[in-house]
Amino acid sequence: MAPSSARAWLGTALAEARAGLAEGGIPIGAALYGADGTVLGRGHNRRVQDGDPSTHAETAAFRAAGRQRSYRGTTMVTTLSPCWYCSGLVRQFGISRVIVGEAVTFHGGHDWLAEHGVEIVLLDDPECVSLMRDFIRDNPALWHEDIGE
Amino acid sequence: MAPSSARAWLGTALAEARAGLAEGGIPIGAALYGADGTVLGRGHNRRVQDGDPSTHAETAAFRAAGRQRSYRGTTMVTTLSPCWYCSGLVRQFGISRVIVGEAVTFHGGHDWLAEHGVEIVLLDDPECVSLMRDFIRDNPALWHEDIGE
Repeated sequence: MAPSSARAWLGTALAEARAGLAEGGIPIGAALYGADGTVLGRGHNRRVQDGDPSTHAETAAFRAAGRQRSYRGTTMVTTLSPCWYCSGLVRQFGISRVIVGEAVTFHGGHDWLAEHGVEIVLLDDPECVSLMRDFIRDNPALWHEDIGE
Repeated sequence: MAPSSARAWLGTALAEARAGLAEGGIPIGAALYGADGTVLGRGHNRRVQDGDPSTHAETAAFRAAGRQRSYRGTTMVTTLSPCWYCSGLVRQFGISRVIVGEAVTFHGGHDWLAEHGVEIVLLDDPECVSLMRDFIRDNPALWHEDIGE
């Protein structure tokens, strides 16, 4: 896909991440785009807000999209490299592409997804990096809880 | 673990699966047990009931357990071999053991989990098999939707 499109879609995920931060939560956001470029669902991590460890940004976006007969041609855009949980989601449901805002502060399962045929667009977005770097510096225990370390 | 304990814990997951079936849903149930043998959370697939594709049995049990500082020593018991999504959950959060009711009607990621140090107890429970076999026979499209095929 064109780099400009990837950046534009990342903007949706970044808006979700900022909203999560403003709520006192972990600043990771995501959106699921359909093959036609429309947003099917968007969301952000809700561990803090809802006391819900199962709602990562990617699972929130996936849930918000509701039931879909197929994920062929869809794109998950996320501000941070997807953890194994969210990588497993992408693989199981056959989501075709993942746009990753950054993989500097956390390196999840995107290489594994690439090996299994998922198109990976790895950006190195400075705002995504600074959001997570600042958050981890100020909230290390919360961050480690969120990724099970 | 003792086979009798694994069977007893599977009973909790089976009760969840039966409850899901009674609600008109996909009959897969799960529970997360703490290292001390207490139930931390339990649940079942809610795709049909809530129109929520993100709530598989394992993620429902995980969510119901709330925020946990560590999953060391915990056991996820599920009526069916966990899909990649749920296998990723187990790996990411360091759940120590998975008890699988059956892997006949669906073979998910439990071999991958075993390769990564998760203890797998694979039962071959006839009620788990018949629940899924009958359900898939009667609802093939719904089942394929649930596993993204």
